Amino acid sequence: MREYNTEILSVGTELLLGHVTNTDARDISEELSRLGINVRYHTVVGDNPQRMRDCVALARSRADIIITTGGLGPTVDDLTKVVLAESFGLKLVENQAEREQMYEYITYSNHFTENNYNQVMLPEGCTVFHNNCGTAPGCAFEADGTIVIMLPGPPKECRAMFRESVIPYLRTLSDKVIVSHSVRIFGLGESAVDDLFAAEMNSMRNPTMAPYAKECDCLLQVTAKADSEAEAEEMLRPVMAQVCEKLGDYVYGTDVECMEEAVLQLLQKNPKTFALAESCTGGEVAARFTELPGASEFLKGGAVTYTNEAKAVMLGIDRQFIESNLAVSEPVARAMAEHMRAVLNTDLAVGITGLAGPGGDGVHEVGTVFVALAAENGTWVRELHMGPQRTRSFIRRMAGNHAYDMIRRWLTGKEVAGNRSCPAF
Amino acid sequence: MREYNTEILSVGTELLLGHVTNTDARDISEELSRLGINVRYHTVVGDNPQRMRDCVALARSRADIIITTGGLGPTVDDLTKVVLAESFGLKLVENQAEREQMYEYITYSNHFTENNYNQVMLPEGCTVFHNNCGTAPGCAFEADGTIVIMLPGPPKECRAMFRESVIPYLRTLSDKVIVSHSVRIFGLGESAVDDLFAAEMNSMRNPTMAPYAKECDCLLQVTAKADSEAEAEEMLRPVMAQVCEKLGDYVYGTDVECMEEAVLQLLQKNPKTFALAESCTGGEVAARFTELPGASEFLKGGAVTYTNEAKAVMLGIDRQFIESNLAVSEPVARAMAEHMRAVLNTDLAVGITGLAGPGGDGVHEVGTVFVALAAENGTWVRELHMGPQRTRSFIRRMAGNHAYDMIRRWLTGKEVAGNRSCPAF
Repeated sequence: MREYNTEILSVGTELLLGHVTNTDARDISEELSRLGINVRYHTVVGDNPQRMRDCVALARSRADIIITTGGLGPTVDDLTKVVLAESFGLKLVENQAEREQMYEYITYSNHFTENNYNQVMLPEGCTVFHNNCGTAPGCAFEADGTIVIMLPGPPKECRAMFRESVIPYLRTLSDKVIVSHSVRIFGLGESAVDDLFAAEMNSMRNPTMAPYAKECDCLLQVTAKADSEAEAEEMLRPVMAQVCEKLGDYVYGTDVECMEEAVLQLLQKNPKTFALAESCTGGEVAARFTELPGASEFLKGGAVTYTNEAKAVMLGIDRQFIESNLAVSEPVARAMAEHMRAVLNTDLAVGITGLAGPGGDGVHEVGTVFVALAAENGTWVRELHMGPQRTRSFIRRMAGNHAYDMIRRWLTGKEVAGNRSCPAF
Repeated sequence: MREYNTEILSVGTELLLGHVTNTDARDISEELSRLGINVRYHTVVGDNPQRMRDCVALARSRADIIITTGGLGPTVDDLTKVVLAESFGLKLVENQAEREQMYEYITYSNHFTENNYNQVMLPEGCTVFHNNCGTAPGCAFEADGTIVIMLPGPPKECRAMFRESVIPYLRTLSDKVIVSHSVRIFGLGESAVDDLFAAEMNSMRNPTMAPYAKECDCLLQVTAKADSEAEAEEMLRPVMAQVCEKLGDYVYGTDVECMEEAVLQLLQKNPKTFALAESCTGGEVAARFTELPGASEFLKGGAVTYTNEAKAVMLGIDRQFIESNLAVSEPVARAMAEHMRAVLNTDLAVGITGLAGPGGDGVHEVGTVFVALAAENGTWVRELHMGPQRTRSFIRRMAGNHAYDMIRRWLTGKEVAGNRSCPAF
């Protein structure tokens, strides 16, 4: 099989001004990696003919496939086709079928201007990709051993055209498939994971594994290349099993985006209700869960008890008790979880109280958080010391991760209070 | 003043595999454009020493400033400093101050591994940027007429370091001072703002103005270049006054990051307490406010009443009343706000109920949200129809913006229910 190296060349001054994020390059890269086609470079260049020409010349020298995004529109700025056709010595010719479709399309629009027909001028002999989400068609051609694919810039149009037209086009080039799984880890940092799998990472060629740091957790990506998806999965199975065994309890899920998603999946298999009483996290732990569709089946509700008064009035905790123990304390976290569980009559409830900073309470260091989980069979509390150098946002997110880690452990019958140390990432 | 051209070189195979989006390049580009520094290219390359070397050589040939992101971590993949130092003929030396800070940082972690110290090996003579959000320090040096700036890859760390350290560093390169103010706008989209100020934008050279779209609001950036900060401010004053007058009530603040920050500033001048009862936003509106230091003086607490049971138990709303009106309705939003205000005895309280999707209630379209504000002098409700094509996350965020917009209007004596239409962006 020939190895194809790809460069994605995104065209548009708005990208260089930071007005938009280059999601096209990400989307295309993800799709290409699934097809087993390497991506070597992403380049972004503005709507400047000379710099575009230079970028095309460079891409020809270092890639077999050049995929451009953007610059196919009707205005004078839209130079991609002009520059690419010129670079490969091709003429632009009007595509009759696309012209007719455009005529139909624009009869729906009040704002038709003649320059729209610039969009149907395409390199002679190219494969035309019709745009089902917008007006500018895309296209592909092969010249001097290089495959050139031009796609529109708007992410929706780019993504749809890639899936509908480019994947079938590229499948004819490659006979390999790439499959990846990610093992999500909480309680070990990227460097510890790297250390743990150093030998495998150095010796393995296919499948491969690589660790990535996320904001408050990390992941190990395991990837195989094979002739078919089934074969790739077959190659991945023993590696995934070995990785998960070695990491044990630190694994909170595979192929999930975050810890609350792993908890939601566990709840879908083993339905339990829960509630959240939050002080320093101020609603964030609830907000993370309710961002997921389907959350309402399991989360009955929560209380943001930012003040002692709210803890007393909404949860029914005795004011004296709060004042004598201090709001940030193990007994108050425990009481928040137990009272919350009683108020909404749930299977599980979480209580979180701590100092997210920058101000302190004169007793505890900023970064001290108590996270409690109450259930029928007991209440567990983790005491976290993240240190005052952490940001407010990190402290809140990490506290939430510990809450979800405790729920996950309770749901899977693991020691709930375990993994209590706050890992550094 | 010398014109600087910049190339942003992002390093990381995860970008080429499409696992993550290159938001760093966008963030940095936006900040540089505010500083009046040109960005000519974005390049993404994998963790491969030879390809990185080639990219660095190319960037040296076409840019005056090279900003790298990523590859500063502790693992063998993290090659950015090694390659850049080698390209410019510099040695990497251990930075004692950073080593000591790292030692302190990691005493909070159980999982320290020796490879963490790789991160404090920095090019000799460089300016060190301490990382306040993570472990890997960044740095800058100037060699052979090129300025090299290396930043960590995780977006939070990259953004914070850019603002805290890189902006002051870049300011020293220019003998002109650039000052920007941003006028934050809620209720008008970027294109409407663009339309409103088209004449000024075309005719003005210094100060300049430019609109930017944010997720659920937009801003107009007004920028002046002068010999001193005082002079730039003097040039900006009349323009800012004119812009704010023209936009009127749509302006919710200047030089703030978000609507909740504008509300916090108003509360600091005119102290009032408030509380939040959230259904479809699930704690997010509280979480946004409590993310700000100082929030606890004004937000007494809140209830996440995701289920009818929670609305009844935690807020004391009659179950019959909820069932006969439907949970998503004007009367229930009103009752949530009024009951919440009574429960925590606050000056103001918000009630939010709606359908964030993807599932509906069989009566309302997804994207329908009722936002109520209760105060001593009345209760106001906005009925929003954002449409089912919006994402869950957009609907939740926009609902929160309306809540803060209503609080802002109440605090400043403006018509509270005004601006009720959901703007399209």
